[in-house]
Amino acid sequence: MSEIVTIQQAVMAEDEKYASRIRRLMRDNKILMANIIGSPGCGKTSLLEETAPKADFSFAVIEGDLETSRDAERLAVKNIKALQINTKGCCHLEAHVVEKALSSLSLDSLDVLFVENVGNLVCPAEFDLGEDFKAAVASTPEGADKPLKYPALFAQAQVVLLTKVDLLPYVRFDKELFLRDVRTLNPKSPIIELDLISGVGVEEWVSFLSDRLRRKRAHVD
Amino acid sequence: MSEIVTIQQAVMAEDEKYASRIRRLMRDNKILMANIIGSPGCGKTSLLEETAPKADFSFAVIEGDLETSRDAERLAVKNIKALQINTKGCCHLEAHVVEKALSSLSLDSLDVLFVENVGNLVCPAEFDLGEDFKAAVASTPEGADKPLKYPALFAQAQVVLLTKVDLLPYVRFDKELFLRDVRTLNPKSPIIELDLISGVGVEEWVSFLSDRLRRKRAHVD
Repeated sequence: MSEIVTIQQAVMAEDEKYASRIRRLMRDNKILMANIIGSPGCGKTSLLEETAPKADFSFAVIEGDLETSRDAERLAVKNIKALQINTKGCCHLEAHVVEKALSSLSLDSLDVLFVENVGNLVCPAEFDLGEDFKAAVASTPEGADKPLKYPALFAQAQVVLLTKVDLLPYVRFDKELFLRDVRTLNPKSPIIELDLISGVGVEEWVSFLSDRLRRKRAHVD
Repeated sequence: MSEIVTIQQAVMAEDEKYASRIRRLMRDNKILMANIIGSPGCGKTSLLEETAPKADFSFAVIEGDLETSRDAERLAVKNIKALQINTKGCCHLEAHVVEKALSSLSLDSLDVLFVENVGNLVCPAEFDLGEDFKAAVASTPEGADKPLKYPALFAQAQVVLLTKVDLLPYVRFDKELFLRDVRTLNPKSPIIELDLISGVGVEEWVSFLSDRLRRKRAHVD
């Protein structure tokens, strides 16, 4: 097994070079880049659909999926610029794949770049894509035990999004436990509650992004 | 990259030996083994909790999680024999880990062994644990697009479980699309609809298992 680990580490080190190049590209273009990670069906695409009408910044999306271009098509219907990457069985996006995709995306007049990662709480958390921050998404029907079960993601996320709060009356979800466990792993990052059908929480999310964008640009200038 | 693939294949071939040994062990002990795969929070543990009171067979559970023993504790409360494996960051169970766990489980008078895999629709689908069949679990809040997005799992599953049908009035879920897409990938496997709060569908699931157990024993004898 040790041989695999060594080679895996070498590949990850190689991938760090791509991540650094992406980070530099984003800095040079003053673009805020967010890597959005959550379970299948937790509401990642809906989040981006609902972000568009309220955003005071321009954005584009890189969509990661094993198969299909459904998510990019959903976004295109809403006039959101989206680029689909099909990983063909790979359970996460890697920086070299994202860099290749970026070459076919115009970065001019772009403020924010979202990467919607493959629906998976485990593997995407381990890969740096050159993003400014990772956003962890969890939905209420998944249950409150997710932070402690998937601590790597929740500990490093710079924002935690709790989606589908409209389903709280119908599901078994201990919100106090969820919030307490997130805080144990991650004392400071904001936790935003969202209902993406009625739009609850979207303004708070948009204002989090605007603030991060402003701070990045102040820092770069 | 080709070097990684070669070594990965070698590891998977090595793991096939463990899977074959497990398969033989299950045959010798006339135990039906089911590998349960679904997203985080889709209801895998609830399914096993609700199976116990209706089952006309004895069973034990091997629980796979990155961290915590919460699922095994949940099952223990219901007097279900459960063994927790913590994968410490690994996104799926592998046969050599399951074989090691089996050595501390008494197989006497056991009819069915469930493996509740790590919550993940991608990676667990690629690994043979020596099971008789894989069960794919999808919940309605995840959305109807999961089968085509995660085709490897839905194509090979010998039973597809659609959970949380009680939430249908409150979520956007196109059931016709879901059923059609499952059928495109997988023309024959039964699809069972479940509400694990009221117990809808549990008897159908239990009778599917009893039937598979009976057929396996008839075949072994």
